[in-house]
Amino acid sequence: MSKLKRVYSFGKRTAEGKADMKNLLGGKGANLAEMCLLGLPVPAGFTITTEACTEYYENNCSLDPDLMPEVWAAMKLTEETMNMKYGDPANALLVSCRSGARKSMPGMMDTVLNIGLCSSTIPGFLKKTNNPRFVWDSYRRLIMMYADVVMEKAEGIELGEGRGIRKQLDEMLDAFKHKKGYKSDTEITADELKLLSEEFKKKVKDVLGTPFPDDAKAQLEGGIKAVFKSWNGKKAVSYRRIEGIPDDWGTAVNVQAMVFGNMGDTSATGVAFTRNPATGENLFYGEWLVNAQGEDVVAGIRTPSPLNDETKNEQNKHLPSMQEAMPKTYKELCDIRDILEKSFHDMLDIEFTIQENVLYMLQCRAGKRTGTAALNMAMDMLDEKLIDEKTAVLRVDPAQLDELLHPICNPDAEKKVKPIVKGLPAGPGAAVGKVVFTAEDAVAWFRKGEKVILMREETNPEDVEGMRAAVGILTARGGMTSHAALVARGWGKCCIVGAGGLHVEAASKTAKIHGSSVVIKEGDILTLNGTKGNVYTGAIALMDATENPRFQEFMKIVDKHRKMGVRTNADTPADAKIARDFGAEGIGLFRTEHMFYGKGSEQPLFLLRKMILSANETERRKALDELSGYVKKDMKATLEAMNELPVTFRLIDPPLHEFVPQSPDKQEELAKALGIKKEDVEKRGEALHESNPMMGHRGVRLGITYPEVTEMTVRAMFEATMELIKEGKKPHPELMVPVTCDVSELDVTKKVVDKIYNEVCKKFGVSKIDYKYGTMIEIPRAALLSDRMAKTAEFFSFGTNDLSQMTFGFSRDDIGGFMNDYLDQKMLAADPFQTIDQEGVGQLIIMSVQKGRATRPDLKVGICGEQGGDPASVEFCFKTGLTYVSCSPFRVPIARLAAAQASIKYGK
Amino acid sequence: MSKLKRVYSFGKRTAEGKADMKNLLGGKGANLAEMCLLGLPVPAGFTITTEACTEYYENNCSLDPDLMPEVWAAMKLTEETMNMKYGDPANALLVSCRSGARKSMPGMMDTVLNIGLCSSTIPGFLKKTNNPRFVWDSYRRLIMMYADVVMEKAEGIELGEGRGIRKQLDEMLDAFKHKKGYKSDTEITADELKLLSEEFKKKVKDVLGTPFPDDAKAQLEGGIKAVFKSWNGKKAVSYRRIEGIPDDWGTAVNVQAMVFGNMGDTSATGVAFTRNPATGENLFYGEWLVNAQGEDVVAGIRTPSPLNDETKNEQNKHLPSMQEAMPKTYKELCDIRDILEKSFHDMLDIEFTIQENVLYMLQCRAGKRTGTAALNMAMDMLDEKLIDEKTAVLRVDPAQLDELLHPICNPDAEKKVKPIVKGLPAGPGAAVGKVVFTAEDAVAWFRKGEKVILMREETNPEDVEGMRAAVGILTARGGMTSHAALVARGWGKCCIVGAGGLHVEAASKTAKIHGSSVVIKEGDILTLNGTKGNVYTGAIALMDATENPRFQEFMKIVDKHRKMGVRTNADTPADAKIARDFGAEGIGLFRTEHMFYGKGSEQPLFLLRKMILSANETERRKALDELSGYVKKDMKATLEAMNELPVTFRLIDPPLHEFVPQSPDKQEELAKALGIKKEDVEKRGEALHESNPMMGHRGVRLGITYPEVTEMTVRAMFEATMELIKEGKKPHPELMVPVTCDVSELDVTKKVVDKIYNEVCKKFGVSKIDYKYGTMIEIPRAALLSDRMAKTAEFFSFGTNDLSQMTFGFSRDDIGGFMNDYLDQKMLAADPFQTIDQEGVGQLIIMSVQKGRATRPDLKVGICGEQGGDPASVEFCFKTGLTYVSCSPFRVPIARLAAAQASIKYGK
Repeated sequence: MSKLKRVYSFGKRTAEGKADMKNLLGGKGANLAEMCLLGLPVPAGFTITTEACTEYYENNCSLDPDLMPEVWAAMKLTEETMNMKYGDPANALLVSCRSGARKSMPGMMDTVLNIGLCSSTIPGFLKKTNNPRFVWDSYRRLIMMYADVVMEKAEGIELGEGRGIRKQLDEMLDAFKHKKGYKSDTEITADELKLLSEEFKKKVKDVLGTPFPDDAKAQLEGGIKAVFKSWNGKKAVSYRRIEGIPDDWGTAVNVQAMVFGNMGDTSATGVAFTRNPATGENLFYGEWLVNAQGEDVVAGIRTPSPLNDETKNEQNKHLPSMQEAMPKTYKELCDIRDILEKSFHDMLDIEFTIQENVLYMLQCRAGKRTGTAALNMAMDMLDEKLIDEKTAVLRVDPAQLDELLHPICNPDAEKKVKPIVKGLPAGPGAAVGKVVFTAEDAVAWFRKGEKVILMREETNPEDVEGMRAAVGILTARGGMTSHAALVARGWGKCCIVGAGGLHVEAASKTAKIHGSSVVIKEGDILTLNGTKGNVYTGAIALMDATENPRFQEFMKIVDKHRKMGVRTNADTPADAKIARDFGAEGIGLFRTEHMFYGKGSEQPLFLLRKMILSANETERRKALDELSGYVKKDMKATLEAMNELPVTFRLIDPPLHEFVPQSPDKQEELAKALGIKKEDVEKRGEALHESNPMMGHRGVRLGITYPEVTEMTVRAMFEATMELIKEGKKPHPELMVPVTCDVSELDVTKKVVDKIYNEVCKKFGVSKIDYKYGTMIEIPRAALLSDRMAKTAEFFSFGTNDLSQMTFGFSRDDIGGFMNDYLDQKMLAADPFQTIDQEGVGQLIIMSVQKGRATRPDLKVGICGEQGGDPASVEFCFKTGLTYVSCSPFRVPIARLAAAQASIKYGK
Repeated sequence: MSKLKRVYSFGKRTAEGKADMKNLLGGKGANLAEMCLLGLPVPAGFTITTEACTEYYENNCSLDPDLMPEVWAAMKLTEETMNMKYGDPANALLVSCRSGARKSMPGMMDTVLNIGLCSSTIPGFLKKTNNPRFVWDSYRRLIMMYADVVMEKAEGIELGEGRGIRKQLDEMLDAFKHKKGYKSDTEITADELKLLSEEFKKKVKDVLGTPFPDDAKAQLEGGIKAVFKSWNGKKAVSYRRIEGIPDDWGTAVNVQAMVFGNMGDTSATGVAFTRNPATGENLFYGEWLVNAQGEDVVAGIRTPSPLNDETKNEQNKHLPSMQEAMPKTYKELCDIRDILEKSFHDMLDIEFTIQENVLYMLQCRAGKRTGTAALNMAMDMLDEKLIDEKTAVLRVDPAQLDELLHPICNPDAEKKVKPIVKGLPAGPGAAVGKVVFTAEDAVAWFRKGEKVILMREETNPEDVEGMRAAVGILTARGGMTSHAALVARGWGKCCIVGAGGLHVEAASKTAKIHGSSVVIKEGDILTLNGTKGNVYTGAIALMDATENPRFQEFMKIVDKHRKMGVRTNADTPADAKIARDFGAEGIGLFRTEHMFYGKGSEQPLFLLRKMILSANETERRKALDELSGYVKKDMKATLEAMNELPVTFRLIDPPLHEFVPQSPDKQEELAKALGIKKEDVEKRGEALHESNPMMGHRGVRLGITYPEVTEMTVRAMFEATMELIKEGKKPHPELMVPVTCDVSELDVTKKVVDKIYNEVCKKFGVSKIDYKYGTMIEIPRAALLSDRMAKTAEFFSFGTNDLSQMTFGFSRDDIGGFMNDYLDQKMLAADPFQTIDQEGVGQLIIMSVQKGRATRPDLKVGICGEQGGDPASVEFCFKTGLTYVSCSPFRVPIARLAAAQASIKYGK
């Protein structure tokens, strides 16, 4: 076995790594290497592998003894390339130490800059730069960052809420500025910064018990450890859980020669997207800050300047663009943009620094984008022949597609009101919700079922869970590349940032509007128009986004590459029509009981109740006869809406007691209407009461006890079908039996179906009605005995909601008491009711498909649980060989895309 | 392929079949053949195979064209042996046509006697017998039986409740007797019987539409078909379901030359057991009737005479015994008894007929017996070297063992009261219950949770379900071999028959006692002493049967052949002691929550409620600390009772809301005691309320949310253990986590356990406490992911109650609404909560064991669901490789026996 290589160097036009080594070098490290190979100006450095991180955790959080020697060997190469020496008193090389995982986790892990500044290197550095203010500013920044990241967080020191060392040092800085009457950091002089640095070091020792290390080598080793450690920091872990990133991937560490954007007015730093990440437009899009270090841009503390004319907007148009201020360097950057897009075939998010007029590339990675942008860019790049069709299909995250279908503010309604404040349109679409001022409140309110708008001065990585819980995010500070903007865009969430007119007072949970008497309090309703950046008080009516032609064009390509069918769960002709417009190829689940809920259900529900309260079979049959007409009408209209496509009708599923009114008033009313005693209504309700209705008298079990209920439903289905055929239509009904656990249930039910079938054939004078007879697979036993189920069933449809309930023993109505504990403690990777639990429930599904097809090779197999519209679940269904997935109408395009991507990734 | 042989002949000292061909010839046919081979006097005949019956059903209920030719060929052999000719006008052979399945199904299928009597054979038969009364009596019996069995039942004719042809003919007979003033059938003259026969034939044609066939050949073919058909008769199907006999076994048909016990006073018929079936005593035991046909004895219409001195009792001592009346033939029968027992190595149930002083054997089969008899005979025959140890172990049905442990009347209490009536002690033990008068009522009351005594004039096969539902059976008529006695004995159920002093008036649902003013009404409480045959009004205290030494001796042999462990489910030191006396090798399930239910639970329950109602963790911990002492005390005493044996403690399992009082009064009371507001109690109850508590916040999920509850329990367990060790005891605690679905739950819980473990180690100054850490497997996902569960769990215990609930999606509390429909329609073979569903749930268990042992080869695997004491389930557990089964204390001996039998049958 060859020796483990833990460190990969990169430098001028040369690198040991390359772009496709992301798993080992992390995204940042691999792309830094690639940029070097492309000949771009990258400060030299080296990447410590993700394997070294895993090794670190396996070694109980200690570095392998071979690691640091390898680091110092690589440092030698960096020193040669940069023509400086790390720790050298005369010509000191300073380095940054940054995390970089396989998949970008923006802001979730730690970074330390300016490493290598210490009492032995400062004098030489002062001499070389001849810029004491810059040197002492760099030094105080190093102390602040290092104390926070390496000495406090990585050591796991708990200083209590709001008493972190960084916070305390910030307070010292503020107090100093206040004493001096300074308004900005830039007013602090070099000598004052030197003084502050000394006071910072004292404070660090006081608070943390150990001194700030005055040794370059020790500083770097500490930095590396801190980055490793930050992989398991609370916010990183929480982010990974949300994004589904495995814990054992680990992070790489990138150690790179420092270049300085804060060496005066010929220096700058910036971030850019090679195309517009919000719209997808093929325009160079970015922000920059003169005389600043990178963290200043990302943290959103100063409002950044526009990169070029195209990036100017209301908030920043008065600030100088890079195009205007540094045209030569801007031109150089534009050339780099072209090289990168041609090389990476994708829109990239880049970071650069200009040190005394020299441009350096610090980072490039695939840029986060909204769903709209992803789709537009995929189509553009396809036109530009930068990518092929399959790549285009893979470029759009199915979950993001959602936003293209998401509501926007009704334009007419919006015209009538004035925004109270404006900000940057960081996440498109619209959102209406109640204002909260902390991430914790957002989570708490969300759990109570509220829709909330999270309003913050600015967001930071600690806010991630709250941002996720909110329907919309609004910040007073920060630009389009600020934390809030990046995160919201990744999720396709409505977001407005940098609403400068807003004064957020988190302590009192209120916000004021500059130049207005409006005070926004917790719980007030706001509407955000994330596409325009407008904030309104009160609720504005929302409406569905009209579909754009590019979306249609994209979906055509998607369908070209899709092999698995996509149906919809629809219970009404109206839903069926919507779903068909969204591309549904049939109905996978029509719930017969739908008509007893919601609007227009009064008469059918009354008849159902009459049936339930019947004293005997004769009365029951009478009530059912009356009901039959309503059921037939809906079935017919749905079959018609889905003409030529299959429609799966499920027999009545819920336990009957669900339909008996619970309140005394309603019981009284019903009794009167039915001409019976209220006590009888009560009694029947009590008799039907169940301890665990989810596992009670429901689904097929109802039909076993009351075959007349099955008869009514089946008769309605066959008659609706025959009537349509007589009208020249082509209906394709399928009958599905729910909650089965044994083939005997299918057989007994089939006898009832056959009886009605024959009667309807006779009535319409035909010898045959085409239909399919199948079953839900939603009880574990049905999955286990699928070889037998398939003897009678011509199709299976996985009811993954119930199947997950029974397989986990989790009642979906009751998981509130513990599910968050499970997710918080990472005991489960995800809520199994949102995405199929492939490890457990998935075993049953795979087994069921195999056993079912062993009995009946042409068995059609689908899924109609809510997970049918979840991209990861769709992928699983494809891999398992399902014939189709069925999901709610609005998720049909998502399922189509996910199915196409699965075909491309895993298809033969 | 050789031609299918459908018919096997038997005759004088020769036969085509033999005893071990039961599967093909049925029990009766195989043993008839064997008796012929043993040289016993058996009327010749032949057996139509069970395969021919299966063929009949496969052919859509029609005979194979080759069958009847084979029958007539075999008839030729019978004719030759018997020296008569079937259908011959001068010397007609008459035959019987009887069912005979693999396993005896007494009275469940149909029989037709005297087949072959018709207008062409009667004159010759009259001449040959010179006994016109006998001939016409035989003829009218044939008509009655044939019309009922062949013409009505087998043809599926529905005449309505109580309007069956048999009933109508019986009414004609009664009316005739009434008209003539006859008290008994024997008073009817030959001419009158002839007349009645003609009138019967007219009635049959009127009612059934077809004439009684006057052709010998047609009669036999009809008889064969009717027997086949009766295999699927309602009562046979119901019996098979209860006894677990597969539907596809089919029945054989035995066609045998008729011999007549009703040819006058030198003729007789009888049934006997080669040993006493109630006690096992090695005494010839039987009943006989002079001048009667077999059905007269079995039907219990006439009280039969004793076979010998040993069989005399209060009811029959005035009647002549066979020993006295026919000493020579009795001696012959005794010799046959010896030959049979030596050949069959078992106690046999025989039927014989004496025709004009000549003895014929009609049937022999292993005799049904009580559990007591089975055990005593097994031990006797072992002593007699008739059987070996393994056979002895196999001889006792584990389910029957139950009666040996069953309660009897407290002798002191019984002394103080007088029986209201006496009968035959047909089923041992005692029973207290409410009187019902119909089988339907017995079933209905049983379903309402009542203990009932079924009181009938006599029972018939239609009553089987009601007899099963009753705790005791009491009949006014019938002997020890009557239907009621046979069936009750098979089940080990308390039963008294032939209580002649009882006048049952089923119509008015009352009974009177001869010579007493006592009137027993429906719902009155009676006590039966089935061992003595005494009936008492009111409830007499029952007590446990003292164990007899033979039982102990038998169980020693059982354990010698047993390989799988048997533990008990016990929650108190008292239960633990009982179970240990019954041979439990440890506790497989100690439910920590037991102490909150029942007597003595007031203070612990109060503390638990206090804990549940705590506003925060601090208060909760305080309540738990108080509770800990109670838990420790019980745990310690239980560990002590099981000294040196393992005790598995399960963490608290039920959802907390179960412990919050529901009634306003109790809530008020609790609130007062706790010094909080009633509203708070209400609110907490509401907050804890769940839609489906079975799948809610319970088991391990409680401990995940409230680790302090786990801490309390675990601390109690470790401290109890350490205290016992200090006292010189050898406790072996095992900690079991319930309701797990993922190994992460075991890991998170283990951290809490480890913390307390370390604390207790420190407190007692030890470095180690021996214990095992394991999990219930009761959620399907845990079974599916058992390879992972076994990474942390050192043992598994299958909670087959919950596992069956989740696998079927059946809530055990709610199956009342549909389970009977499922069982009635044979949709499920058995209630999965009584016996493990091997097809479905069994798959998960097998998978779990295999996966668990793949990870941890020495994984201990047990079962602690209620099915752990069910013999069929125990056998399954053995075959699946379980380490032990655990069941309630009283089922421990049953499980030991079932486990030993499994070892003998399936062990290596």
